Amino acid sequence: MEDLFWIGFVGAAIALLFAWLQRSRVMSFSEGNEKMRKIAASIREGANAYLKHQYTTVFKVFLVVFILLLIIAFGSGGKMLSQFTPFAFLTGGIWSMLAGFIGMKIATNSNARTAQAASESLNKGLRVAFSSGSVMGFTVVGLGMLDITIWFFLLRYAFGINDPVSLGNIMVMNGMGASFMALFARVGGGIYTKAADVGADLVGKVEAGIPEDDPRNPATIADNVGDNVGDVAGMGADLYESYVGSILATFALGAVGGYGWGGLLLPVALAVCGIICSIIGSFLVKTKENATQQSLLKSLRTGTYTAAVLSAILAAPLTYFILDGHMGVYVAILCGLIGGCAIGYFTEYYTSDTYKPTQELAAASETGSATIIIGGISLGLKSTLTSILIVAAAVLVSYFAAGGSMEIVDEAGAFTAAFNQGLYGIGIAGVGMLSTLGITLATDAYGPVADNAGGIAEMSGLPESVRERTDALDSLGNTTAATGKGFAIGSASLTALALLVSYVNIVQENTEEMLNFTLTSPTVLVGMFIGAMLTFVFSAFTMSAVQKAAQSIVVEVRRQFKEIAGIMEYKADPDYASCVSLCTKGALHEMVVPALLAIIVPLATGLVLGPTGVVGLLGGVSVTGFAMAVFMSNAGGAWDNAKKYIEGGHHGGKGSECHKAAVVGDTVGDPFKDTSGPSLNILIKLCSTVSIVFSGLILSFNLMNLL
Amino acid sequence: MEDLFWIGFVGAAIALLFAWLQRSRVMSFSEGNEKMRKIAASIREGANAYLKHQYTTVFKVFLVVFILLLIIAFGSGGKMLSQFTPFAFLTGGIWSMLAGFIGMKIATNSNARTAQAASESLNKGLRVAFSSGSVMGFTVVGLGMLDITIWFFLLRYAFGINDPVSLGNIMVMNGMGASFMALFARVGGGIYTKAADVGADLVGKVEAGIPEDDPRNPATIADNVGDNVGDVAGMGADLYESYVGSILATFALGAVGGYGWGGLLLPVALAVCGIICSIIGSFLVKTKENATQQSLLKSLRTGTYTAAVLSAILAAPLTYFILDGHMGVYVAILCGLIGGCAIGYFTEYYTSDTYKPTQELAAASETGSATIIIGGISLGLKSTLTSILIVAAAVLVSYFAAGGSMEIVDEAGAFTAAFNQGLYGIGIAGVGMLSTLGITLATDAYGPVADNAGGIAEMSGLPESVRERTDALDSLGNTTAATGKGFAIGSASLTALALLVSYVNIVQENTEEMLNFTLTSPTVLVGMFIGAMLTFVFSAFTMSAVQKAAQSIVVEVRRQFKEIAGIMEYKADPDYASCVSLCTKGALHEMVVPALLAIIVPLATGLVLGPTGVVGLLGGVSVTGFAMAVFMSNAGGAWDNAKKYIEGGHHGGKGSECHKAAVVGDTVGDPFKDTSGPSLNILIKLCSTVSIVFSGLILSFNLMNLL
Repeated sequence: MEDLFWIGFVGAAIALLFAWLQRSRVMSFSEGNEKMRKIAASIREGANAYLKHQYTTVFKVFLVVFILLLIIAFGSGGKMLSQFTPFAFLTGGIWSMLAGFIGMKIATNSNARTAQAASESLNKGLRVAFSSGSVMGFTVVGLGMLDITIWFFLLRYAFGINDPVSLGNIMVMNGMGASFMALFARVGGGIYTKAADVGADLVGKVEAGIPEDDPRNPATIADNVGDNVGDVAGMGADLYESYVGSILATFALGAVGGYGWGGLLLPVALAVCGIICSIIGSFLVKTKENATQQSLLKSLRTGTYTAAVLSAILAAPLTYFILDGHMGVYVAILCGLIGGCAIGYFTEYYTSDTYKPTQELAAASETGSATIIIGGISLGLKSTLTSILIVAAAVLVSYFAAGGSMEIVDEAGAFTAAFNQGLYGIGIAGVGMLSTLGITLATDAYGPVADNAGGIAEMSGLPESVRERTDALDSLGNTTAATGKGFAIGSASLTALALLVSYVNIVQENTEEMLNFTLTSPTVLVGMFIGAMLTFVFSAFTMSAVQKAAQSIVVEVRRQFKEIAGIMEYKADPDYASCVSLCTKGALHEMVVPALLAIIVPLATGLVLGPTGVVGLLGGVSVTGFAMAVFMSNAGGAWDNAKKYIEGGHHGGKGSECHKAAVVGDTVGDPFKDTSGPSLNILIKLCSTVSIVFSGLILSFNLMNLL
Repeated sequence: MEDLFWIGFVGAAIALLFAWLQRSRVMSFSEGNEKMRKIAASIREGANAYLKHQYTTVFKVFLVVFILLLIIAFGSGGKMLSQFTPFAFLTGGIWSMLAGFIGMKIATNSNARTAQAASESLNKGLRVAFSSGSVMGFTVVGLGMLDITIWFFLLRYAFGINDPVSLGNIMVMNGMGASFMALFARVGGGIYTKAADVGADLVGKVEAGIPEDDPRNPATIADNVGDNVGDVAGMGADLYESYVGSILATFALGAVGGYGWGGLLLPVALAVCGIICSIIGSFLVKTKENATQQSLLKSLRTGTYTAAVLSAILAAPLTYFILDGHMGVYVAILCGLIGGCAIGYFTEYYTSDTYKPTQELAAASETGSATIIIGGISLGLKSTLTSILIVAAAVLVSYFAAGGSMEIVDEAGAFTAAFNQGLYGIGIAGVGMLSTLGITLATDAYGPVADNAGGIAEMSGLPESVRERTDALDSLGNTTAATGKGFAIGSASLTALALLVSYVNIVQENTEEMLNFTLTSPTVLVGMFIGAMLTFVFSAFTMSAVQKAAQSIVVEVRRQFKEIAGIMEYKADPDYASCVSLCTKGALHEMVVPALLAIIVPLATGLVLGPTGVVGLLGGVSVTGFAMAVFMSNAGGAWDNAKKYIEGGHHGGKGSECHKAAVVGDTVGDPFKDTSGPSLNILIKLCSTVSIVFSGLILSFNLMNLL
């Protein structure tokens, strides 16, 4: 069994091959008329330019951290840090970047094609957009699988690390590069896309009264570029990180849980199985012409649910075979799959306008923008109830089912085998939740493509019916994106807990002193406070970044409307490029501080408070980060859909006072749901991996050692 | 030394006597002309009616909890719960209620008098308003001291409990009644005041374009009633609870810290000393005629700083004498005093329009209401940085200074004496922070009186110069209120930590099993998640309560403007009473669920997860509750002052587009800073005392016992 890890290569190959086939399929479609091709080219160009700048900035930061890691690893002769970690940091970053980049490439090549296909039929439009999403989905899982398997083979066979515990402990540190890259991509992309979106809306929709994606709006190209660099490239890097992170966190727990190589093989096998099931599911996504919103949704759901159910069924024999019949772990996997679906369902409940909460939120617009803001904040805060109860139940059930017990420490003060077994259950639940990421990500990533297609249809003056079709696809994308976010955030919380425990295990292994991680210890408590603060301050920086960048766009758009005569009468073209370049500058400038916080705060906390403070910090940041992410994502989603609900003819419809109030809500929600919220998922895991990577350093040097 | 507790009676007598003298002084002023008296009478009537309804509702809930406690205490023969606790629960509730009620009484009798006095001179206006605030401040500390001392003498001398540890453990449970009452008063009053305020502003200022407190606005009396039932009665009950809670929490730690009776005497002595210093300080509050804002502020600060410095000086010999020279504890007291001032300073920095953050927030209004909302949220989130770092530093320094060490558990797994000594330091820091509450509360409570005085001046048509003077007083009140909130929230965090540890001590004393409170234990982690959820959901309920109640006011005001002809031309009087009764109904209806959450969630968590889950919950709710409270209070304060800054002539001044955007910000901020934010302070302590009170029950019955 310990030699079955080659299936990782098989899984990666299948995923990447499928992605390639889907890509060829998409590229075989026509990009439409010259105007469409021209617009698509501008978007492509803007997105490329932004990513190039972004990667240049990120490269510098990576270089600094890489050198720092090299010094620690080689300076201490590998004692404070494995000498592989600096290199794994680089590869993780590169793969994560690549996942986002490829996704962006295909998305910017599919938008005009989707618009053109939608002008022929709705089903054709769906197929093109969904295929483009699939390229992204399967590239992410394929590259993730490849990264993990290559490192596994390198370490085990080339460097001869033939003990599962050591190997797991080294591999868990490999997550840092991917997390760090993902944070930059999410934060930078998130700032870009929302600055453009907010800026375009504030002047275009609210002040000038022109519709969305109107070619007269100077920020409209930037807005469409934003969808690609934020919602596609950012999300790709993000989910690459989630996927790899959940598997690596389980690696570290698998061996100490007493399952040996089997404990490491199971998450890999589960992921490979998920890839195959996802491919099967994606063949089921198609729709009839003139399909309703309901039947479109049904067609996507058929795909994802089939993949999930198949995965759930196949996981039973897999677990039985790999773990010698420890079927409690199978229960944990089911917990993950069911928990993910449940969070997805409640996310939809709170954010979709077919349910009461969003409808009531729309009604709050009757008394103006202040009440719809208060209502949305309250809705988002309230929605943490179900998500947290689901995660709490998933944690407890998977822990106890996998063999955990209330006795977590033995007489000698060491963690019991039962404790580690239970934790392995929590980790594997996270892997289960993400095992069908190939298809869930495809349904998620097709949204921005449809959104862009709509923009291109509008700008190139295609018939109204085309825009209606792309709108149907786009609106559906909002719902599937909500589900996707549910999975991402649910798995993030489980992975963060698994990493937190791995941290404690690793620290305790490397010191003879018995560390006291009791919650009531002052250093742990202070660490928790700092963790909560990190969540709040990080959110603050990402929010204000959007606000600042958006303000610069507003000023520029107002200037163009004033200074370039004839824009409003379609007689002169606005200067799209200046908005694109302002967004790029703003995003790059504002993304660095929040991303660095995630490294500096855990490191500084460790240097002052020692490992117990770090554990407090990780606990605090995981818990508040999760709650805050759910709050922000759901509040933002609900505002967005409340606005759409009003646009659908309720409370006076488009242009009414209620609609204006709802637009304010939607605008506030933009950075909530697409910048701060999703970045928090990454933050909580990055803090854990950073702490793990620097644990050797912190153990040797910290202020508390001196007291 | 153990017989010096009678000084508690002396302190209480001095405080109450001073409050009585101040009251007589206020009452000797004239209430002005008939119109003013009539308006003041309506406000008084509305406030009385509301409080009567509120107390009736609260009484029913208290009765249920009282019976529940009786059953547990007497049903278990005192094993699960001390038989004194049910009665202490009642007295705590009654005293807390009384503190708020007396404050409200004097405030509603001072508003017209302040307006009248301000029509004579600014200094006279200040003296009346400040004296009214002093009545409240010294009533709160006097009653608090009385309650504690009476119970102490009852338990020790009438019931012969002559062991400081047992006595401390019983007394710490006495806080529950006060906390529970405070929560109702804060939440109910907070909903009332903000529903009226938001409702009045939304239609009056934004839609009808009439100024604040305009007699044509049907919600204007309700708005003024709200100041009294929320900002006065609610705050009184709240700070009564903080004051008593901080002393009682230290009681429980004083004895186990190894200081015997001295450990209990010190907080009492410190409080008595603070009362005397506060009285001295309050004689220094006076101003010259035509004083500027700056010199008014200086006069209030002279009072509070003198009291604080005197207290700090006197605390040294007190500590030396009572604790036999353990001067480390004195350092902890200083930490509390300095920490409180530092939090107050940064609160002012983030919320006052003399500093950059609020000025920048005001500038965000240039691009509309969405960006000022995003900016305010971001400002509030960012402001948690300093508050949390200050609390973290105060916790660490007071812990180590008071003798704490990194070794918190001995070989046998019991907490070390050094650990408990350190914790005593944290507890006494909280007492130190609140020791001069008499005067800080006076500077805080005078704000709503000045606000009301302005309303009465406006409604009764006094000359513009009177309104200008009351506005100067009111605006100053905003700044001092910010400082007051800093003290309240800082002490809440320290008290919550002290109570959390007392919980662990009490639980561990009552079971032979070694409980594992390690942060990585699944039950602790799940508890932390639930604690964070409680904070978020509690905030959601209080926010949405305001939104719902405000919406009903908006509808009513719109109806009156439409149906009662001639309101706008001053030809017909609006129906003030209907708005007052709507607010009352709304507040009472909406306050019950959030208040019950604070009892039900810890209890349910305990029944499912056992004591380790409860500890997680308390950690989670303390940390996230603190961060959330700071965020909400500061964001709300900054929006308020950004609006005032614009009204002061910046960015186009009153009536400009920027002003409209700022009004939206202010309206959103209202429930943030006056309903949800301050209620969270109480929530985190109530959760702890509830857990302590029910700890015996939970130890015997919980689901984890069955696993």
